[in-house]
Amino acid sequence: MNANETPLLQQTAALLTEYLDECQQTDRSISEYHSAAELSEILALNLPEDACDEAQILDDIRQFLQYSVRTSHPHFMKQLYAGSTAAAIAGDWVSSVTNTAAHTFQVAPVATLMEQQLIDGLNQLLGFDDGDGIMASGGSNANLLGLLCGLHRRWPEIKTQGYRGQQPILYVSDQCHYSYEKAVFTLGIGTDNMRRVPSDESFRMCPVALKQLIAADIADGKQPFLIGATAGTTVAGAFDPIDQLADIAQEFGLWLHVDAAWGGPAAFSHEHKALMQGVERADSVTWDAHKFMSIPLICSAVLLREKGILESACSGGGASYLFHADENADYNFGQKSLQCGRRVDSLKFWLDWRSKGTAGYRDQINHSMQLAQYCCEFIKQHPQMELLVEPDYLNLFFRYTPSTGYSEGQLAELNLAILDEMKKAGSFYVDYSTLREQFGIRLVISNNKLEQRHLDDLLAEIIRIGEQLSR
Amino acid sequence: MNANETPLLQQTAALLTEYLDECQQTDRSISEYHSAAELSEILALNLPEDACDEAQILDDIRQFLQYSVRTSHPHFMKQLYAGSTAAAIAGDWVSSVTNTAAHTFQVAPVATLMEQQLIDGLNQLLGFDDGDGIMASGGSNANLLGLLCGLHRRWPEIKTQGYRGQQPILYVSDQCHYSYEKAVFTLGIGTDNMRRVPSDESFRMCPVALKQLIAADIADGKQPFLIGATAGTTVAGAFDPIDQLADIAQEFGLWLHVDAAWGGPAAFSHEHKALMQGVERADSVTWDAHKFMSIPLICSAVLLREKGILESACSGGGASYLFHADENADYNFGQKSLQCGRRVDSLKFWLDWRSKGTAGYRDQINHSMQLAQYCCEFIKQHPQMELLVEPDYLNLFFRYTPSTGYSEGQLAELNLAILDEMKKAGSFYVDYSTLREQFGIRLVISNNKLEQRHLDDLLAEIIRIGEQLSR
Repeated sequence: MNANETPLLQQTAALLTEYLDECQQTDRSISEYHSAAELSEILALNLPEDACDEAQILDDIRQFLQYSVRTSHPHFMKQLYAGSTAAAIAGDWVSSVTNTAAHTFQVAPVATLMEQQLIDGLNQLLGFDDGDGIMASGGSNANLLGLLCGLHRRWPEIKTQGYRGQQPILYVSDQCHYSYEKAVFTLGIGTDNMRRVPSDESFRMCPVALKQLIAADIADGKQPFLIGATAGTTVAGAFDPIDQLADIAQEFGLWLHVDAAWGGPAAFSHEHKALMQGVERADSVTWDAHKFMSIPLICSAVLLREKGILESACSGGGASYLFHADENADYNFGQKSLQCGRRVDSLKFWLDWRSKGTAGYRDQINHSMQLAQYCCEFIKQHPQMELLVEPDYLNLFFRYTPSTGYSEGQLAELNLAILDEMKKAGSFYVDYSTLREQFGIRLVISNNKLEQRHLDDLLAEIIRIGEQLSR
Repeated sequence: MNANETPLLQQTAALLTEYLDECQQTDRSISEYHSAAELSEILALNLPEDACDEAQILDDIRQFLQYSVRTSHPHFMKQLYAGSTAAAIAGDWVSSVTNTAAHTFQVAPVATLMEQQLIDGLNQLLGFDDGDGIMASGGSNANLLGLLCGLHRRWPEIKTQGYRGQQPILYVSDQCHYSYEKAVFTLGIGTDNMRRVPSDESFRMCPVALKQLIAADIADGKQPFLIGATAGTTVAGAFDPIDQLADIAQEFGLWLHVDAAWGGPAAFSHEHKALMQGVERADSVTWDAHKFMSIPLICSAVLLREKGILESACSGGGASYLFHADENADYNFGQKSLQCGRRVDSLKFWLDWRSKGTAGYRDQINHSMQLAQYCCEFIKQHPQMELLVEPDYLNLFFRYTPSTGYSEGQLAELNLAILDEMKKAGSFYVDYSTLREQFGIRLVISNNKLEQRHLDDLLAEIIRIGEQLSR
C-alpha cells in the first residue's frame, strides 16, 4: 500500500463504525426502499475510462451505505442471517488485507491451523470423535460436498468413468432447502431421482413414508444411496428425526447427510441439543456460521464423521505447480475442496468464537429460543393472530387474521400488504412464505441484537397496520 | 454494534493500515517461516469455554499478522494473485459490515446493480454485445458453471433425469488448470472423458491434434460437446488459439469455454488483446478479478455470450420463501447461481474499477508485460540463467544453471534449494514447477506493487545463492 492509500482505509473504517452504531438506532429505518428500476435511475454506477479521486470513492461508499439494507438493525428479521459481531468483522477485515488463498499451508499458515481448529471444534460439538471437514463456499456448496462424498463412497468409479447406468436415488423431506435440488442436478443425479418424502404435521420427514419409498425404489431396480435430512428447515424450522433416519440409513446402507445450516447451533445448548439427537451417527453435516452465529457471509463448513472420503472425492490435479510434496503437504486443504482459491473464512469465525467463548454461543441460542417462545405465546393469545406452525426452533410462522370469513386469498393479500407497508417505511423487514397452501409471515429469530422489546414493537406494528387495513 | 464494540474495529483498522505500510518495506521479510508442526507448537489456537477480552482479541490479530505471509509485499511473486489496492480493500470492508446475501434484490439492492454493471463491463471488453453472467465463488466454480451450461445446452434432460447413456466428451489442453478436472468429476462426466489435447512447443493447445481427437471420438460413438480452452495457463502463461478453436467448435457444434482466470486482463490492452483473438466467439468465459487485478479473494465471474442458458441451467427451487414474484424478480441473481448465500463481491471490484478507471487497468497490464519482457531479456543474456519457456504473457519459467554437466535431477535440487533459502529468509516468495520433465522456477508478474528494481533484486539474489550453492 502506498502511503497515500491508507487515508482511504482510515476514513472507510470511520464511516463503517458510525454506520454500525446507527444500525442500532431503531428509530432509523432499515432501508430506503426503491424498486430496481427506480434505483437504477438514482445511482450513477458507470465504470469510467479515467480514475475517480479518493473523494469520489468515499462518496461512492456513502451512497452504498445509504441505499443498502441494514441487516444488523435489530428490526431486520427477514433472513436466516442477521446482526453483526465486532470480532468477526475485525477478522474479516484482516482477511481482506492479508489476502491469501487457503489452499496451501505455505501461503496460509495460520489460517490453515485455525480452520483445522474450527473443524475439530464443530466435530466435537456433533460427537464426531475422529472427524474430518473443510470450510466451503456456502451452505449450498457444503450440501453438495456431502452428497458428492455419499455418491463417491457408493460408486467411486463415477469420478473417472462418469455414470454408466447407475440409478442413484436420494431422499429429502418436502421441506428441505432448494440447495439439495441444485446439488442434485449439478452432480448429474437428476432431480427426478430426488424423492421428496412427505413431512408429518410438525414438518419433520416421516420415517415410515421414507421406508416405503426406499422399499419401492429397490423393488423397482433403483439404487437408493443417500438420505438428505434437515436440521432446521427454512420456513418452519423443523428438525427431521435424525436418530430414526440413522436407523434407516444403517438398515439400507445409505449415506446420511444432515443440512444443519440453520439448526446446527442447537447443538451448543444442553436444553435444546435433543433436537439433533442422533447427529453423531450422520456421515456428513452442513454448518453455516454466517446464519445464526452472525459471522459475515460466507462462513460454511461440511463436517464428516470419518476421515478420508472427502479428500478421495475432491482431490485431483495441481500436483506439479501447487500442491508440492513438502513437509507441509498434509496441511494443503485445497486437496479436500472443490475450490482452488479460497478466501480465509476461518479467522473471522475463530476470533468470534474466542471473543464469545463456547458459553457465549450457548447463551445466545438459549436466549433466542426464549424469545421465540415469547413470540409464540403472544401470537397464540392474541385474538387477531393465528399461529400456523407450532415452533420447535427459531421460526415463527403466523398471520394477522382480522375476523372469520376471510378467504385464504384475502388473508394472503392482507398480510402481504402489512409486510409491504413495513418494508416501504423501512420499519421492519420480515419475510413471508406459503406452507401447505397457507400464506404466512415468517419471522426469524436470528439477529443477535434482538431483544424482547423489538419483538413487542414488531407485533404491535403488525396489529396496528392489520387493523388499519382491515377496518 | 454496541458502542463498546467499535473500539475493536478502530484499533483493528489502525493495525491493518500499519501492516499494509510495512508490507511495502522490502527490507522486512515476507514471512517468518515455520513448518506446520512448528507453528502448531508456537500458536495458542484453542477455542475456549469462556470469552476472551478485547485485549486478547487484538493480540490474536497481531499474532495472525506476525505469522502470515505478506502477499502484498513486492517480493511476493509466488501465486497468480498478489498485491493489494486500497479501494478494493475498502469495498471489502464495507461488504463485511453491511453483510448481506446477493441472492435477491430486496436484501442487496445496490450490490445487485453493481454486479450487473461489472458483468456488462467485462462482457463489453470481451465483445459479448448482449451477454449474460454471474459472479461465482471462484475461478474453479466459474469453470464448472461454463461446463454446466455447455452440458445443459446439449442435454437439457440431464438436469431432471440424470445421465441416461449419454457419452459426453470434452477437450482441454495438457496445460490446463486442475479445476477443469474437478468440474468434470463434480458434474458426473468422469475424468476419463476429458481429453488432454497435446500442446505445441509454445504450450498452446494444438488445433490439429484436437480435430483428430474429436474425429476419433465421433467414430467411436462418443459425444463431444465442449472445448475447454485456456487464456493464460498456470505455469507457462500460454494462450490457446481461441479463434481456431472457435472454428472447430462451430464445425462440430461444440460449446467453447475459455478459462481466462489468469489471462483475461490482456483484453484491456490494445497491444496485447490479440492474445485472446476470437474470444468474442466463445460461449462462456471465466474471469478472476482476484488474480492480476489484485482484488481481495474471492472475486470471480462466469461470462456468457448469450442470455438465458445460465438461468436455465442453474435455477431451481426457493420460489415459496426466497425468490418472490415481485416487481424486482428479474434482479434476483441467485436464480443464476449455484450458491444461495453469496457474499457481496461486486462492491470491491466496482470501487477498484472506479478508482483506477479502465485506463488504469490498461496501464497496469501494459506495465506488467514490460516487466516480464525485461526479466525475459535479463535471463536470456545471463550465462548462468536458462529460459525454459519463451513467455507470451506474465509467467517466467527459467532456472539457474551453473555450468554444463549438471543432470536434470541436480538442477532441480539446486533450484529448489535456492527457492527454499529465499523462503526461509523471507526475502522472496517464488514458486516452482515441472514442465515437460524440466524443473523450473515459475516467476509470476502479478503483484501491482512490483517495479523493475524488485526484479533486479530477485534475479541478483537467485544468482548469488546459486553461485554459493554450486561453488
